Amino acid sequence: MTRRIRIVEVGPRDGLQNEPAAVPTATRVALIGRLADAGLRVIEAGAFVSPKWVPQMADSAQVLAALDRRPGVAYPVLVPNEKGLEAAIAAGVEEVAVFGAASETFSRKNINCSIAESLERFRPVVSRALGAGIRVRGYVSCVLGCPYEGAVAPDTVAGVAAELATMGCYEISLGDTIGVGTPSAVARLIAAVEHHVPIDRLAAHFHDTYGQALVNIHVALQNGIDVVDSSVAGLGGCPFAKGATGNVATEDVVYMLDGLGYDSGVDIAALARAGDFITQAIGRPNRSRAGSALLAKAAAAPG
Amino acid sequence: MTRRIRIVEVGPRDGLQNEPAAVPTATRVALIGRLADAGLRVIEAGAFVSPKWVPQMADSAQVLAALDRRPGVAYPVLVPNEKGLEAAIAAGVEEVAVFGAASETFSRKNINCSIAESLERFRPVVSRALGAGIRVRGYVSCVLGCPYEGAVAPDTVAGVAAELATMGCYEISLGDTIGVGTPSAVARLIAAVEHHVPIDRLAAHFHDTYGQALVNIHVALQNGIDVVDSSVAGLGGCPFAKGATGNVATEDVVYMLDGLGYDSGVDIAALARAGDFITQAIGRPNRSRAGSALLAKAAAAPG
Repeated sequence: MTRRIRIVEVGPRDGLQNEPAAVPTATRVALIGRLADAGLRVIEAGAFVSPKWVPQMADSAQVLAALDRRPGVAYPVLVPNEKGLEAAIAAGVEEVAVFGAASETFSRKNINCSIAESLERFRPVVSRALGAGIRVRGYVSCVLGCPYEGAVAPDTVAGVAAELATMGCYEISLGDTIGVGTPSAVARLIAAVEHHVPIDRLAAHFHDTYGQALVNIHVALQNGIDVVDSSVAGLGGCPFAKGATGNVATEDVVYMLDGLGYDSGVDIAALARAGDFITQAIGRPNRSRAGSALLAKAAAAPG
Repeated sequence: MTRRIRIVEVGPRDGLQNEPAAVPTATRVALIGRLADAGLRVIEAGAFVSPKWVPQMADSAQVLAALDRRPGVAYPVLVPNEKGLEAAIAAGVEEVAVFGAASETFSRKNINCSIAESLERFRPVVSRALGAGIRVRGYVSCVLGCPYEGAVAPDTVAGVAAELATMGCYEISLGDTIGVGTPSAVARLIAAVEHHVPIDRLAAHFHDTYGQALVNIHVALQNGIDVVDSSVAGLGGCPFAKGATGNVATEDVVYMLDGLGYDSGVDIAALARAGDFITQAIGRPNRSRAGSALLAKAAAAPG
């Protein structure tokens, strides 16, 4: 039996949200279409958050309206509160995500409330979404470190993850927001969290700021996680270290999965072309190493 | 007991040899000094090869003459044949390396002879070096794939490695020259090679062309290898995919080793500054993610 790994493509949201360049709605729509063509089955399409805070996602309703939604492909969006959920429902989404943190300081700076307050805020959002037949995913950020507090205790992450799971999130995405994790820390984290949330409801969302994302993902796979968040062409910077790398590149993940003989359903050549499309469109370097190498090889090939 | 990992820093040779920019002798000497300051104990300093083929290394004797050689630090150089060994001996080296391939086509294209012929050529080089009290390391390239032949059989690698070990190389460095390896292939390779060469005489020399180097190194460590070749700032391109990445960055390796609690003896902050020095000097982007993030953080820090 081939092991199946589900990739949650976050480039059109988490990625583009953290790129300095503004991206036209049509470009984001075209990117999402190309990603679906490449075989991705979960593609984050936008966020219903205040345009004052995240102007890059202000056109999320337009993106969803313009999308050629395919059967079997999910297009989740982020919602911070009930107002966001209402807008998402109006846009006809089938899946939303709420996002909390495992660090008090990060929670206050990022979403302007304590961890406990954020969970209280999410509870009616999740409940109402589930009532409307909408799936809810939960994000936990700073699971391996916080830019303000430094180390984060695995038990703190486990507590937040457990609350989100209990309130009805079908999956908890564990985010190494600043990419500081290393393999042994990842193993310790998973051991702590899976004590409270079954491993088949956990996802690895690791940033590549220190070059560790792929090895950390491999450790997560070795420890039983089957869902990986990643961003085509490594879209997305790191807001805490200017010029540094953010999300792990989907191409690099798929290259590894292919080598391991795992089935992601993604065609890496088509994926690399999607990465080429968006980096050319926004005038940013392609931060996927596998993508860059494949594109260079294709360009050098005769014919 | 803390596990000790020996890093073989190849930036000043393998790295700079594959950068398009010419590097002044004084810059290479300064880089080697900074790397030794950062705690590296094995630093490839040059190559005594034909300047017609590798003009970047034509000043290797001058580099060795100008070096402030420290006790406890090795400065190996590459030698392709007896003529190169003579020049290396005249320059007062204490360690040399010979380099073969596990792919016939690559061997013919890179060193202009078959694998068997190359081994016959190395035999008197190794014998004479050992007689002169000089240690010899052996490189095997294309251990996980060849740009011309594609897949390379682990048993072929094992055969070449065994011959080099038998003729007296104290260590065999297994090179994924084009960075195509993935974790399961690395595990299979090591299993095949350690059947012929003890694991404590093997080193991992993995390129990051497809973003897989660090995860592959982690797998090598998990399988018992204690020696890692790497290049400060990821110096060195990939000659087979223009614009693609070559050597894994030493900073990224040390960041992982620090996180794992392994002792490399390297001060990562000083190492990152060495990477900053050389990339600024040659006007190339810093390809280490950990190095770039550490430098960005240091630049943003008050005071």
